[in-house]
Amino acid sequence: MDAGARIEQTLDEALRSAERQDCPPLLAHAMRYSVFPGGARIRPRLTLAVAKACGDSQPAMANAGAAAIEFLHCASLVHDDLPCFDDADIRRGKPSVHKAYGEPIAVLAGDALIVLAFETLAEAAARQPQRLGALIGVVGAAVGSRGGIVAGQAWESEPAIDCQLYHQAKTGALFAGATMAGAAAAGVPHHGWRRLGEKLGEAFQIADDIRDVASTAEELGKPCGQDAAHFRPNYALAHGLGPAVAHLDELVLEAIASIPACPGRSELGTLIGLTAKSFLPEGLQRRAA
Amino acid sequence: MDAGARIEQTLDEALRSAERQDCPPLLAHAMRYSVFPGGARIRPRLTLAVAKACGDSQPAMANAGAAAIEFLHCASLVHDDLPCFDDADIRRGKPSVHKAYGEPIAVLAGDALIVLAFETLAEAAARQPQRLGALIGVVGAAVGSRGGIVAGQAWESEPAIDCQLYHQAKTGALFAGATMAGAAAAGVPHHGWRRLGEKLGEAFQIADDIRDVASTAEELGKPCGQDAAHFRPNYALAHGLGPAVAHLDELVLEAIASIPACPGRSELGTLIGLTAKSFLPEGLQRRAA
Repeated sequence: MDAGARIEQTLDEALRSAERQDCPPLLAHAMRYSVFPGGARIRPRLTLAVAKACGDSQPAMANAGAAAIEFLHCASLVHDDLPCFDDADIRRGKPSVHKAYGEPIAVLAGDALIVLAFETLAEAAARQPQRLGALIGVVGAAVGSRGGIVAGQAWESEPAIDCQLYHQAKTGALFAGATMAGAAAAGVPHHGWRRLGEKLGEAFQIADDIRDVASTAEELGKPCGQDAAHFRPNYALAHGLGPAVAHLDELVLEAIASIPACPGRSELGTLIGLTAKSFLPEGLQRRAA
Repeated sequence: MDAGARIEQTLDEALRSAERQDCPPLLAHAMRYSVFPGGARIRPRLTLAVAKACGDSQPAMANAGAAAIEFLHCASLVHDDLPCFDDADIRRGKPSVHKAYGEPIAVLAGDALIVLAFETLAEAAARQPQRLGALIGVVGAAVGSRGGIVAGQAWESEPAIDCQLYHQAKTGALFAGATMAGAAAAGVPHHGWRRLGEKLGEAFQIADDIRDVASTAEELGKPCGQDAAHFRPNYALAHGLGPAVAHLDELVLEAIASIPACPGRSELGTLIGLTAKSFLPEGLQRRAA
């Protein structure tokens, strides 16, 4: 089974189990609506790719790690779209969860997806508990108050923001969680895999800046030109499109160079080069390395 | 160290670790504000009491289980108080988190406490991973979409509510999680401990109804008479104060009778009788058995 199919199937099975047994129908619908149809599933693909490069000795743990990362990503999107944050009406080309199901169900769907992420890890580890602690540590750090997504979002409520810390927490942390979860699921030391995720997160952030400037709303599935409209820092706005694409290429090369020694190092490097290209809108992919 | 001190110390240590390393200051303050000063800590006390009755062979796991249950309880209070739910201004005698820190930080503090609950379990289990999976399963079920707190809250968005399912999810599930977590932390089978938690949850719900009718706002730390004001079902309003106290006594006796065989069964029964008394406002405690 290819990586995409493994991810969709694991997400679907975990959601089906969450929908059984006393789950109120609207909550169940909203959770599924938050997860399907997905975006590019970049983060869980990264988890599976790293697990594969490290030998993937327990594919069920890698699947669970990938699904946990994606559930947490989806939960963060649902909460970020709430009226008290971005107040976004549209996400992935359809009404945001609070627009479709109301604000209470949106808060609860996000909460439930966070819980489901950890439950999914625990269920996969039922017979092999040795890797569970490391996976929960990695995944928790990626989303929690210590430099994870929640911390990233919370910086927006501070009187002064350290821009690098902000982007690192809001975007980089979950990418780092994705690569480290792949290693932890494969049973190898995960700390060496942080840099790969962080560099890719940085590259993704630049690509996001580029997309906000150079895409159409149709391509994005959400409004474009938002950074200029809200006076948010944007690398492509500040430095121009060409230098932004060049910086993205540089970050991807640094990411690939950081891959620790492992059986599938070379294949993983190729895959990451291709994945990073897909960060950009089609019209710009030719310019990227 | 007595149970109360074990709980406060574990909560404090986990929060201190959550506050370090790139945690935005407002988020850190709001998390601590959500947890301290606490209420009666009934649920984590229950976790420790069950663990003790079962031998408490790994006190650090029991502490972590108790803290996880309390963090999840506090997270649910923070999110329940949000404007889109109860829109509560006051909690535990002080401004609710969204009143004190704003709505974005309240959403994020709740999210971060959910994550911290699972991280606290994983950290305690670092050297003894065998009990981690069961603990996460128990704690996840208590709060998630499958009949946990989140499900309980989500029933309020449905066109029709099954009252028993609603109370079971909103109150009973976390009590059941508290007793089962104590057993799982002590390394004994936890399923037999569900009934004790569920009966106590039911008793607590009746006590809550009684308090809403018979307490002063000062005793409650929040407005009283809310059920009558919002036309919510209330056992004491429907049946009268005397019959409500009698039903509470009955539930507590059923709870005590359900305690599985274990080394500390008799002592635990006594403790639970005393705890259940404390559910009631002082003026009514003399009436309870």
